Amino acid sequence: MEEIKIFGHRNPDTDTIMSSLVLEDLENKAGFNKVKAYRLGKISKETEYALNYFKVEAPELLEEVQPGQKVMLVDHNEFSQSVSGIEKAKILRVVDHHKIAEFQTSEPLFYLSMPVGCTSTILYDMYKTNNIEISEKIAGLMLSAILSDTLLLKSPTCTPKDIEVANDLEKIAGVNLNEYGLNMLKAGTDLSEFTPNELINIDSKPYTTNGIKYQAAQVNTVSIEDVLKDKEEIEKAMKDFMDSNNVDSFLLMITDIIENNSQLIVLGKPEIAEKAFNIKLKDNMAFLPGVVSRKKQIVPQIESVL
Amino acid sequence: MEEIKIFGHRNPDTDTIMSSLVLEDLENKAGFNKVKAYRLGKISKETEYALNYFKVEAPELLEEVQPGQKVMLVDHNEFSQSVSGIEKAKILRVVDHHKIAEFQTSEPLFYLSMPVGCTSTILYDMYKTNNIEISEKIAGLMLSAILSDTLLLKSPTCTPKDIEVANDLEKIAGVNLNEYGLNMLKAGTDLSEFTPNELINIDSKPYTTNGIKYQAAQVNTVSIEDVLKDKEEIEKAMKDFMDSNNVDSFLLMITDIIENNSQLIVLGKPEIAEKAFNIKLKDNMAFLPGVVSRKKQIVPQIESVL
Repeated sequence: MEEIKIFGHRNPDTDTIMSSLVLEDLENKAGFNKVKAYRLGKISKETEYALNYFKVEAPELLEEVQPGQKVMLVDHNEFSQSVSGIEKAKILRVVDHHKIAEFQTSEPLFYLSMPVGCTSTILYDMYKTNNIEISEKIAGLMLSAILSDTLLLKSPTCTPKDIEVANDLEKIAGVNLNEYGLNMLKAGTDLSEFTPNELINIDSKPYTTNGIKYQAAQVNTVSIEDVLKDKEEIEKAMKDFMDSNNVDSFLLMITDIIENNSQLIVLGKPEIAEKAFNIKLKDNMAFLPGVVSRKKQIVPQIESVL
Repeated sequence: MEEIKIFGHRNPDTDTIMSSLVLEDLENKAGFNKVKAYRLGKISKETEYALNYFKVEAPELLEEVQPGQKVMLVDHNEFSQSVSGIEKAKILRVVDHHKIAEFQTSEPLFYLSMPVGCTSTILYDMYKTNNIEISEKIAGLMLSAILSDTLLLKSPTCTPKDIEVANDLEKIAGVNLNEYGLNMLKAGTDLSEFTPNELINIDSKPYTTNGIKYQAAQVNTVSIEDVLKDKEEIEKAMKDFMDSNNVDSFLLMITDIIENNSQLIVLGKPEIAEKAFNIKLKDNMAFLPGVVSRKKQIVPQIESVL
């Protein structure tokens, strides 16, 4: 039987990696399909911490898919965020929690999207619907995904459903949600080993609306000041990225996960960001109090201007 | 509280009308949202038969929606098949069983699609998931939708899941599935009152792929020969439609619901249909044995050529 490949978005974050592994487990246990989880890029330190904690191996790297390859997407749907060759793949399933854009198929498929904080919250529902037991390890992976995407259940993307699911998973996984989650997030804020170019690609997503190509990246930290020490080099890396990818505007969120604020650096078309957030950029920067979610607090505001 | 509008596609068929009414019932019973079902066009004779049988009123006509209007879509997702103004509406839910195309949102939403024969089959699952009882009337509407979309469970779009659900709904609705279904389908084949222009719009859908605009319409009959008596007038109506809507190719399926075959009439770019179905058109026509499903046996084949 032909192998079906499961993967999340490029520049994988913890939800994307965990949800790939979790859907692999679910499909195998339910006996639905012969599937294998993959990743489209480097594992982050945060994800690595969680995988090590629950003693689960990272999925293999996938560079591209061949025409006709059967695939399942988690945690994304926009082709520009997906694997090379996705346009000619046969998409069997999508499980996601993002807006839908730049997505199309030539045949009907299983598509489940919910406006919740994390893909793993939806996968939890699929275990329940199909009466499949959630193991300790899988609970740990799902909990890590939720705590990562919702910044310890404090992000505005977090819904009552995410909290309910996280509380149940906390018991199955046998960890203390707050303690474990903070350690995991902190592991992800160690940016010392990253070059500026790597830093802007840790969690970076491309968008295209009305012909405007923009990139929205995010890094988590416990000290915005520390990250800004390399501001000049970071801006150079952003500029280089824009030049080689024909990007009109690049927004980098430097998010303080303790205080729940973000410093925004914007290069290219500053008037869009200034209008979207009602700010005045100074040295390409603005401080956005209470802003931690790209999905809820950055992208829709940019879209509404575009 | 602001009213949320539920509707299916233009040129409504039985599944589209019933699924709008069924989701209205589900939302109201679950207490999720204050919703109201609408229709985007004239009720067919088949749908009218089913509504009369189960003593349910047809939904009101909806011409357009205002910017920001909250809506839920059933049985479609492509904006070209939806209500005027859909681009600026706020889409809260989609429940559908078609391929996804020309669809986008600026925010996350609830989207549930499954590769099954009928939207009502998916709605049945939502009743079960939310532990909501299905009344006799609602069961009758859902059963009508399934029997219509799957031509009495015989279309290639029909899945084991549709059959399982239909068998359960048959009991709740208290009808004989085959007898009731055949009477309903036959009611829909009375084309005597339709002008040729109305006939090609009974169940007609627009598609756009790689810049090619094509229209795929279907009429059900118990005698293909009878319908072909008006071939000249029908072709004139198709030609007029193409001219006023800038359509490149128009495919009309005349489907024999007893024998499960279709006669295809093609105007414009005949080479596409000839390649897609490996046929040679004669007098703009070809007989397609065993072909009854636009979704499975017409659209994907056209798409693969385009």
